[in-house]
Amino acid sequence: MAHATIEWTANLEGAFDLGGLLSLIAAEMRERSSDVFPVGGIRVRAIRLTDYVIADSNCADDAFINIDVKMGVGRDAAFKQAFFNQMFDAVKAFLGDLFERRSLALSLYVEEAEGWKHNTIHHRLTARK
Amino acid sequence: MAHATIEWTANLEGAFDLGGLLSLIAAEMRERSSDVFPVGGIRVRAIRLTDYVIADSNCADDAFINIDVKMGVGRDAAFKQAFFNQMFDAVKAFLGDLFERRSLALSLYVEEAEGWKHNTIHHRLTARK
Amino acid sequence: MAHATIEWTANLEGAFDLGGLLSLIAAEMRERSSDVFPVGGIRVRAIRLTDYVIADSNCADDAFINIDVKMGVGRDAAFKQAFFNQMFDAVKAFLGDLFERRSLALSLYVEEAEGWKHNTIHHRLTARK
Repeated sequence: MAHATIEWTANLEGAFDLGGLLSLIAAEMRERSSDVFPVGGIRVRAIRLTDYVIADSNCADDAFINIDVKMGVGRDAAFKQAFFNQMFDAVKAFLGDLFERRSLALSLYVEEAEGWKHNTIHHRLTARK
Repeated sequence: MAHATIEWTANLEGAFDLGGLLSLIAAEMRERSSDVFPVGGIRVRAIRLTDYVIADSNCADDAFINIDVKMGVGRDAAFKQAFFNQMFDAVKAFLGDLFERRSLALSLYVEEAEGWKHNTIHHRLTARK
Repeated sequence: MAHATIEWTANLEGAFDLGGLLSLIAAEMRERSSDVFPVGGIRVRAIRLTDYVIADSNCADDAFINIDVKMGVGRDAAFKQAFFNQMFDAVKAFLGDLFERRSLALSLYVEEAEGWKHNTIHHRLTARK
């Protein structure tokens, strides 16, 4: 499985393509992970932040996008480094010159966890084939 | 203490009883934990997700419910396995045939943490007795 | 970097100054950390919770504020204890007699993580000088 959560400050409304960013991260997980992330377990969501204070709180244009990934335990360290380097670069490229047009902090954190699961999305994907 | 957070995709609106699910998890923590979770420290909340991409992003009906639990450090491994097996089964049973009626991913993760606390709910509970 | 997230139950609307609490935590990180937290990396946000069940669920006035901090790995244990003791006391003092006026649970958890970053807020802060 792979969960990703994108937090973004509401002062970025209209400044970037949120749907495109959600799709990009899901596509990276599907297409660049050598099947490490089963397709049926990919869940990417976004949280719009309306209340925040950033840095010295002196600039209303300061903004941030933070991405938290949670995935199963046991993926190889070299895979993780390569995959998330690639994904982070893809997100940076997607945001383009937004970093020059305003003060913006992008961050990505990855944690591993095991849990309980019951998932019928896998059945839909199999049935479709 | 025991915190739980239920994330759920907004395309499940009306498809399940959110208030009932919140209450179920709180009740499991109160009634099935042999007092491992003090009642006054139980805090269960839900986050409605309006922006998400799931799996191959080809099915608007794909949905997920994810439950993250945070609890104090040091509970016995056997307790944790038994309690969360039971709780996960109770959630599955609560959702009933929703898993057959649509493609749905349910997940549960548990982490342990110690922190700082100040809590007057315990006083209310004691005063009530 | 230092991220903080304040979760608060919506039944506290109007009962405390949310903007003030966000600013207080950012100010603590700027002014009380002996530059352990670079100013450009401070990101404090709040999430308003509209769906929740607390304790025995018998008191509509039960409320909670939960603060999760995520910061870089490797800060000294003595610093962490002293800084977060101070910050927690500052938050308690800020909330004042709210703990007596209603049943309220305040909590603070701290985790450490390393990740990927790209941040032009640092440039804005340097340019300003």
